[in-house]
Amino acid sequence: MSARTDVEAVEEANTAFYEAMERGDFDGISELWLDAEGGDDISCVHPGWPVLSGRGEVLRSYALIMSHTEYIQFFLTDVRVSVAGDTAVVTCTENILSGGPAEEAGELGPLVGQLVVATNVFRRTPDGWRIWSHHGSPVLAESDEEQDDESLS
Amino acid sequence: MSARTDVEAVEEANTAFYEAMERGDFDGISELWLDAEGGDDISCVHPGWPVLSGRGEVLRSYALIMSHTEYIQFFLTDVRVSVAGDTAVVTCTENILSGGPAEEAGELGPLVGQLVVATNVFRRTPDGWRIWSHHGSPVLAESDEEQDDESLS
Repeated sequence: MSARTDVEAVEEANTAFYEAMERGDFDGISELWLDAEGGDDISCVHPGWPVLSGRGEVLRSYALIMSHTEYIQFFLTDVRVSVAGDTAVVTCTENILSGGPAEEAGELGPLVGQLVVATNVFRRTPDGWRIWSHHGSPVLAESDEEQDDESLS
Repeated sequence: MSARTDVEAVEEANTAFYEAMERGDFDGISELWLDAEGGDDISCVHPGWPVLSGRGEVLRSYALIMSHTEYIQFFLTDVRVSVAGDTAVVTCTENILSGGPAEEAGELGPLVGQLVVATNVFRRTPDGWRIWSHHGSPVLAESDEEQDDESLS
């Protein structure tokens, strides 16, 4: 299998992860998270949250987030994939548009935009690439005031 | 090499990373970051920052942070190490105490406490474990108001 194919496969797994979130597909999310060695070694950080470890904590957090989210869409930009052996690190910017339930039943709450950056670590398994670690965090400033690197603007 | 030994070695590399920051040791930080395949595949997210990619961007950010930091100390808690083959994922809580320069030359500015969680990915190299990815983010809430998992408190 060529390195090029690996990068494509990892990028597909990364996209599938966000598409499952958009669909509110808990089973899809559950399947994409690594389930090896008892599943104790996965870790997840949602923006502003402490670290969650193990399948129990991680999957409960997704059930909780999904129950509070009526609508969510991810526009991914700056996707970078780095593969080494059976592990891959993906970084991306999640441009998120989301809304909770409104007061009126059946209506959407106000949509909120959010800028989050993520580091997603994948492991190769016989069933495909699976998520070993996800870390998302809010971008609080575009770039440091003294940072003069144009690539950051 | 046993799995136990790997976990210890990774934990040592993780500790060395924070100790180099405490000493303001730019060369130490530079040495601990992976330098493979041209060094283009490393990534770093400082709390609230966008993603930095490649040795150039990443190391410049450390030079910038060090130039603004007179004093910094990391009290690491909740350190968890997961090793698979030649890759390791470390999560930890960084209880940070830091201070910038004061108005008076030679004096310390006011010390500031900060709660950050980090996911650090390491790769095994002939020279030891090296940092492939670092993602730090501020903890904005101890736990969700509807989160009833006691292990999170």
